[in-house]
Amino acid sequence: MEAYLDNSATTRTADPVVQIMIEAMQVNYGNPSAKHIKGVEAESYVKEAASIIAKSLKVLDKEILFTSGGTESNNTAIIGTAMANKRKGNHLIVSSVEHASVKEPFNFLEREGFRVTYLPVNSEGIVDLEALKEALDEETILVSCMHVNNEIGAIEPIEEIGRIVKEYNPDIIYHVDAIQSYGKFRIYPKKLGIDLLSVSGHKIHGPKGSGFLYIKDKTRIKPIIYGGGQQKGMRSGTENVPAIAGLGKAVELIYNSDFDKKIEHLYEVKDHLIDGLEKMEDVQINSKRDGESAPQIVSASFKDVRAEVLLHALEEKNIFVSSGSACSSNKPGLSNTLVAIGLANNLLDSTIRFSFNYETSIEEIDYALEVLNTLVPQLRRFVRK
Amino acid sequence: MEAYLDNSATTRTADPVVQIMIEAMQVNYGNPSAKHIKGVEAESYVKEAASIIAKSLKVLDKEILFTSGGTESNNTAIIGTAMANKRKGNHLIVSSVEHASVKEPFNFLEREGFRVTYLPVNSEGIVDLEALKEALDEETILVSCMHVNNEIGAIEPIEEIGRIVKEYNPDIIYHVDAIQSYGKFRIYPKKLGIDLLSVSGHKIHGPKGSGFLYIKDKTRIKPIIYGGGQQKGMRSGTENVPAIAGLGKAVELIYNSDFDKKIEHLYEVKDHLIDGLEKMEDVQINSKRDGESAPQIVSASFKDVRAEVLLHALEEKNIFVSSGSACSSNKPGLSNTLVAIGLANNLLDSTIRFSFNYETSIEEIDYALEVLNTLVPQLRRFVRK
Repeated sequence: MEAYLDNSATTRTADPVVQIMIEAMQVNYGNPSAKHIKGVEAESYVKEAASIIAKSLKVLDKEILFTSGGTESNNTAIIGTAMANKRKGNHLIVSSVEHASVKEPFNFLEREGFRVTYLPVNSEGIVDLEALKEALDEETILVSCMHVNNEIGAIEPIEEIGRIVKEYNPDIIYHVDAIQSYGKFRIYPKKLGIDLLSVSGHKIHGPKGSGFLYIKDKTRIKPIIYGGGQQKGMRSGTENVPAIAGLGKAVELIYNSDFDKKIEHLYEVKDHLIDGLEKMEDVQINSKRDGESAPQIVSASFKDVRAEVLLHALEEKNIFVSSGSACSSNKPGLSNTLVAIGLANNLLDSTIRFSFNYETSIEEIDYALEVLNTLVPQLRRFVRK
Repeated sequence: MEAYLDNSATTRTADPVVQIMIEAMQVNYGNPSAKHIKGVEAESYVKEAASIIAKSLKVLDKEILFTSGGTESNNTAIIGTAMANKRKGNHLIVSSVEHASVKEPFNFLEREGFRVTYLPVNSEGIVDLEALKEALDEETILVSCMHVNNEIGAIEPIEEIGRIVKEYNPDIIYHVDAIQSYGKFRIYPKKLGIDLLSVSGHKIHGPKGSGFLYIKDKTRIKPIIYGGGQQKGMRSGTENVPAIAGLGKAVELIYNSDFDKKIEHLYEVKDHLIDGLEKMEDVQINSKRDGESAPQIVSASFKDVRAEVLLHALEEKNIFVSSGSACSSNKPGLSNTLVAIGLANNLLDSTIRFSFNYETSIEEIDYALEVLNTLVPQLRRFVRK
């Protein structure tokens, strides 16, 4: 038995996604900028993908900018907005529990002379709205907050944040990192007051190297990559047609058939895992149940067990999980979010993230629980003897 | 019969490239940052690709930075160098015939306050080395020049430029855009004094969305995209493992078997086309023969024929070519290089680029010549009557 429970790190590319990519790589392989039919064919994949994605968000096709992934989407949103609006003001606001691909661009801008306010969160990882209200000032040009936290699955109040920001000053640009939420929630930026929304393809069974940034029409933003002027000058470079086509297909697969059923299934899987973990001794669950938290993520701390040791013990049983967040495993050090929610010191290094996909089965969860119930007491014996 | 003669715009992805991509998308699909075996498997594709590429250039594996393509490689090289060295000086030097993905980053830096010298070229498109010598000064931090011109195939004297730059001041960083030359030439950056070398995957039968930047060890350069710290912090974002693996495979296919034969064949194809074009009336060839010009590009001007009309007429016969450079066809206006080499005004808008791949056959060229010999006189009749 195998249980791949690391889907928030990356997912297997879906079969229909691979199929359309092969077509775009070997049959209709033209450069969309070419003036002949092979260019037109290639461009039609890009248009089709933009249309599918725009429909899923209820936005215009031309508001979709294709990028090389979630990190580029976040960098474009944050650095591009700051650079385009620096004459209006130099104050930026962001939560203190963001993914590195948001946090690091803000750190870069801070080094470039911008003033950045980092909003605190409560013990559930939820941004403090009073702190947001206090932080907003005349110099504020950008507010950024993630939708679903990548480490514990907490859902941030993006609608309330949008309301507060836009009531204070409708010109402030509001960016949401939806990399862990798109594909799991119905997100309508125009209803939520969102100007910029970042998405990654490989978290939703699309290709690695694919992603998009929703940019509300007429938003003041500059590119971060310059060249041939593709995508109306906002992202130069030959469009990655196969990846874009694959991303469109991935979105279609998710949103255009039985979306609610898929999410219901994810919540069942999640609750089943939490039920099992709660029966174990000295396990603290860092993710909430039901609609108060994302359907695909369960974070749990195993007292007196080192996360990395548990991860490798699970691996030997073909169970794949993450300690903290895989995306930042290049950077040793403690987790952003786990510290921010005030997790007890002795649990920080004992935390595992389980993350599911639409096809994760109850059987896989039962298998993982069975193995955990054997392994965890064994590993504790070394520490507790 | 079909003749795809637009390979400098983009190429068909090779079968073995697609195969390894499928494997990396569906079998070993982990995130290279994951600590479990699926992460290790994914990382091994990245390491293998770096090793293949490094060998082709005779450089170290760790000197290869993977990017989302040639445009990102050029942007990283140019903007990343300028930002990292601005305290040392603010003067940059670049040729006047660069691709937009080089030219536009320089224009951006000029707007940011850097001083940029654009070197003139002679009637063959070759950079003026005396102008380079005069331009170098104490403030110079970067010199950039393409290797093979994308519009006419001219080969720039990159070795002489390297020598002049490094003799003047070895600390000046020397960047070469090798997007149209890698795969057609043996390029050894360490012999040539090159610190940074840009390459694109989709020009050499690799995937779109792939590319690399050779960065000589210890070169002072900053990233342009921030986040999880992948690739030693120089390019954050989950590595595009399938594209990287595909790029490695594409390089292996080119350099590891019968490289010289492939290039010989390209020159045969090129000479055959030039022979045929020379027999036509009022056709000016803008590309030189033999080793004085790249093997895969022929630029030709058809007097009294509008390039775009000819392009579409050829398209109806399944012959695919480019007018000017496809990569900049988003930007209307005259070609950079054709103007710089002093092409007669009446020919600027009458110029077609034919570009080959290793499998382009003499039969395809004969077919193209046959069609041209019919079409060109027909099209001229409208203008000349």
